[in-house]
Amino acid sequence: MKQLILAAKGEKAKTIIQAQDRRFGDGFVIIAGPCSVESEEQLIETAWAVKEAGGDFLRGGVFKPRTSPYAFQGLGLKGLKIMEKARTLTGLPFITEVLDTRDVSWVSEYTDILQVGARNMQNFSLLKEVGKTRRPVMLKRGMNSTIEEWLNCAEYILKEGNPHVILCERGIRSFETYTRNTLDLSAVPAIRELTHLPIIVDPSHGTGRMSLILPMSLAAVAAGADGLMVEVHPNPPAALSDKEQALAPAQFASLVKKVRSLVQFMEGLR
Amino acid sequence: MKQLILAAKGEKAKTIIQAQDRRFGDGFVIIAGPCSVESEEQLIETAWAVKEAGGDFLRGGVFKPRTSPYAFQGLGLKGLKIMEKARTLTGLPFITEVLDTRDVSWVSEYTDILQVGARNMQNFSLLKEVGKTRRPVMLKRGMNSTIEEWLNCAEYILKEGNPHVILCERGIRSFETYTRNTLDLSAVPAIRELTHLPIIVDPSHGTGRMSLILPMSLAAVAAGADGLMVEVHPNPPAALSDKEQALAPAQFASLVKKVRSLVQFMEGLR
Amino acid sequence: MKQLILAAKGEKAKTIIQAQDRRFGDGFVIIAGPCSVESEEQLIETAWAVKEAGGDFLRGGVFKPRTSPYAFQGLGLKGLKIMEKARTLTGLPFITEVLDTRDVSWVSEYTDILQVGARNMQNFSLLKEVGKTRRPVMLKRGMNSTIEEWLNCAEYILKEGNPHVILCERGIRSFETYTRNTLDLSAVPAIRELTHLPIIVDPSHGTGRMSLILPMSLAAVAAGADGLMVEVHPNPPAALSDKEQALAPAQFASLVKKVRSLVQFMEGLR
Amino acid sequence: MKQLILAAKGEKAKTIIQAQDRRFGDGFVIIAGPCSVESEEQLIETAWAVKEAGGDFLRGGVFKPRTSPYAFQGLGLKGLKIMEKARTLTGLPFITEVLDTRDVSWVSEYTDILQVGARNMQNFSLLKEVGKTRRPVMLKRGMNSTIEEWLNCAEYILKEGNPHVILCERGIRSFETYTRNTLDLSAVPAIRELTHLPIIVDPSHGTGRMSLILPMSLAAVAAGADGLMVEVHPNPPAALSDKEQALAPAQFASLVKKVRSLVQFMEGLR
Repeated sequence: MKQLILAAKGEKAKTIIQAQDRRFGDGFVIIAGPCSVESEEQLIETAWAVKEAGGDFLRGGVFKPRTSPYAFQGLGLKGLKIMEKARTLTGLPFITEVLDTRDVSWVSEYTDILQVGARNMQNFSLLKEVGKTRRPVMLKRGMNSTIEEWLNCAEYILKEGNPHVILCERGIRSFETYTRNTLDLSAVPAIRELTHLPIIVDPSHGTGRMSLILPMSLAAVAAGADGLMVEVHPNPPAALSDKEQALAPAQFASLVKKVRSLVQFMEGLR
Repeated sequence: MKQLILAAKGEKAKTIIQAQDRRFGDGFVIIAGPCSVESEEQLIETAWAVKEAGGDFLRGGVFKPRTSPYAFQGLGLKGLKIMEKARTLTGLPFITEVLDTRDVSWVSEYTDILQVGARNMQNFSLLKEVGKTRRPVMLKRGMNSTIEEWLNCAEYILKEGNPHVILCERGIRSFETYTRNTLDLSAVPAIRELTHLPIIVDPSHGTGRMSLILPMSLAAVAAGADGLMVEVHPNPPAALSDKEQALAPAQFASLVKKVRSLVQFMEGLR
Repeated sequence: MKQLILAAKGEKAKTIIQAQDRRFGDGFVIIAGPCSVESEEQLIETAWAVKEAGGDFLRGGVFKPRTSPYAFQGLGLKGLKIMEKARTLTGLPFITEVLDTRDVSWVSEYTDILQVGARNMQNFSLLKEVGKTRRPVMLKRGMNSTIEEWLNCAEYILKEGNPHVILCERGIRSFETYTRNTLDLSAVPAIRELTHLPIIVDPSHGTGRMSLILPMSLAAVAAGADGLMVEVHPNPPAALSDKEQALAPAQFASLVKKVRSLVQFMEGLR
Repeated sequence: MKQLILAAKGEKAKTIIQAQDRRFGDGFVIIAGPCSVESEEQLIETAWAVKEAGGDFLRGGVFKPRTSPYAFQGLGLKGLKIMEKARTLTGLPFITEVLDTRDVSWVSEYTDILQVGARNMQNFSLLKEVGKTRRPVMLKRGMNSTIEEWLNCAEYILKEGNPHVILCERGIRSFETYTRNTLDLSAVPAIRELTHLPIIVDPSHGTGRMSLILPMSLAAVAAGADGLMVEVHPNPPAALSDKEQALAPAQFASLVKKVRSLVQFMEGLR
């Protein structure tokens, strides 16, 4: 059994994954944007805010994996076109989630990074399909997945020939109810010692509470993460999804400043 | 928000789901067979053993959701043709899992029941796709899913127009390591009080230990389950997957006898 | 390392633990009563109801381990005297929980069985102290304890010289919120194959829902349990603790009848 | 219901807890030492190493809550006298765990801080007993405790009249097996917004892996912790307990330097 991820431990330098001119695994990458693309106005306004605050990537869901079938399911192609427009205007590359094997090929024409979400971490058909593209893939950890299972899922993608995998810790499910999930930051150094892949952290889903996002972002930096993915919305209380965990633009700008400052400090500390 | 499942609570009788001449929700249905279809010989031998022991349905995976990409991934169409042959020979209808939205349509031409597995419980694209067929769907509970989330996934299928949903409790993930999963039998009466859908139990995945399958099958009957799904293999130690939890034919025959006897007793007790 | 519990596996018959004229491990023992002893009237009324319904043992907490320090903490010695009076009147032996090493010696003069609760399962000082008495001890499984840890706690008691240990499964903590805990019935056959100690089940704490107690009691019998512990209160909505999970006397009487009937049936089935 | 902890939220400044000349809640306190006091030589050697590295407090268990009754149970009074000697020699105050209500009074004569361990978090008799002393108490979070339950346990201590409570996050139990526990750093900012009590982090028990202790210590600082508790042993592979998670003196010295540097940086950042 050839393990493309595990066998590489210690043998080669960290994989650098380039998307446009941003490099995961070399420097610190901040992805931000709304949970869902709701309208052109909402998205473009957020994109400019992310850009001005110093974010690197825009996120925005157009296919939404929602617990209830009666919840907003996303704008689909129309949303992708809005993301594309935002990229043209602001220069920010973007990432979006794909849910269905039938969508992988055409969505990868639009997006800079394909996201496989937590609920689909073990959707092996989807993993194989994104493994057949040459787009970078961000693979979120499943809510109840061990690190070993997660790495096996990354291996599914690598085995199909796509080495551009970014891992994202987004919280696991526990009995605790104060936070939406339990952000497992120990996964960051664990992934570091087990693989050569970059790992980023999503403190928005990881905590589900606006007030915890800044401290957990700083903690992620100190633990050695290669980046962050943060939910930003121009008007959080009006968001169609995840309103409790989205930052307003000014909060995000303050977070970027502190995070960049800590990243620089940590480089001197190691 | 119209909740097809929850709103029906108490308003109508239990849904009866018919597949060939077996009826879920009316009587007790026993599904058995190997984890994976490995060869024609293995499957046909198992099918006869299931038939002779008094099983109602044959199970057999042809698309296998395996943790590692290097593990046996199933025989695909070739496996389906073997299942079809077993049905012709023994008269047993069968159930098989589907993993990819692109396979739903053609696989539903072969199988009597479509299974959505635990890892795909929240693969909403797949739920919508099986909801567009008229085949009965067995929806397994995700390893870390609350009952509420599970019912929302069933709702996805019902909302597309397919009312033939059978729920299957197969164990949730906990910290316990003696068993492979923690079989949550309280889900059986909980589902009973919350919905009108039939619910069956899978003690093979639920425990992961051959020695626990009989007592937990009997417990499932006493808790009020509408059926069981049990792994049977002609030669468990040689199985390509799940060897620790498959019953040999003689063990299965003994289980069926005891289970049927308890089912009859429980009918008199209520 | 001499393991008094594990080493005995298969070597000797099941341990029979006698308390008054009831025998755990030989026949089926039903313990019932209120969560807390609240008053003489409440307790005596419950005791007669338990007696008339065919219960074997009375339970009643006099030292209550409550989440909040502002919740009712139990009547202490006054409560024990009420329990003693109930025993004199009805002939039912009783079980009560002890929380403090300083109380073990004198409480064991009153009670027929000492209970070590879930929150104290790994209170090793308490385990050693109850191990020094000759009273039977009922050791509840901790809410987040593996079976192995639980057996090690029983071993603490045995090692001090007290072989009279009854195990009690009472639910483990999971992410599920519909039930108060997740009753792990697979622990029953697991304990059976690992040890020679009797094991009973507490479906009241295990589910936290009145409607689930009967089906889970029957499931516990079918899984092979040696007994049950059930909360009964003369007027559940007025209970000072655990009101959602107490049965009224008539419900309990109906449960006892069905449970005894199933116990008898199961004896014929094995 | 008067909640001494929760009611104080926002109303008063953070509680400062003084033990000797160290102040929890004002500056950053590093506690270090072996899991168990094994011998005078081992402890004194460690104490000097902790002192020289810049640690503030010495830890050392003399009553050990061990999973198995056959594991080393600690030196008891003899161990306390060794701790006392180390304090006299090095000037480092110390903390030690107490397990039994009968020991609280006399142990509090020796130690500077009383520890209530994770397994005893809901040992309410012990909480009340330490609440009757005037010694500072470090209350570890139970392995499966919600933040709300943990705060209720602190409330037990405060209610008895002892306001000197320090909280310690030490990891919760999840399904993940790569780490011994899942260190829940989000508890740090959560405790910050809910209470006025100082909170420290134990990355040794929280991860169970030597290689993860430094990154998680830095993450704890960035998340806003008031201190750390770290296991240090003069010769980790020879430790009688927790050998996989103890740092050697040189590793600890390097950790202290980096941690102090980050603490200083974080003060400028807020």
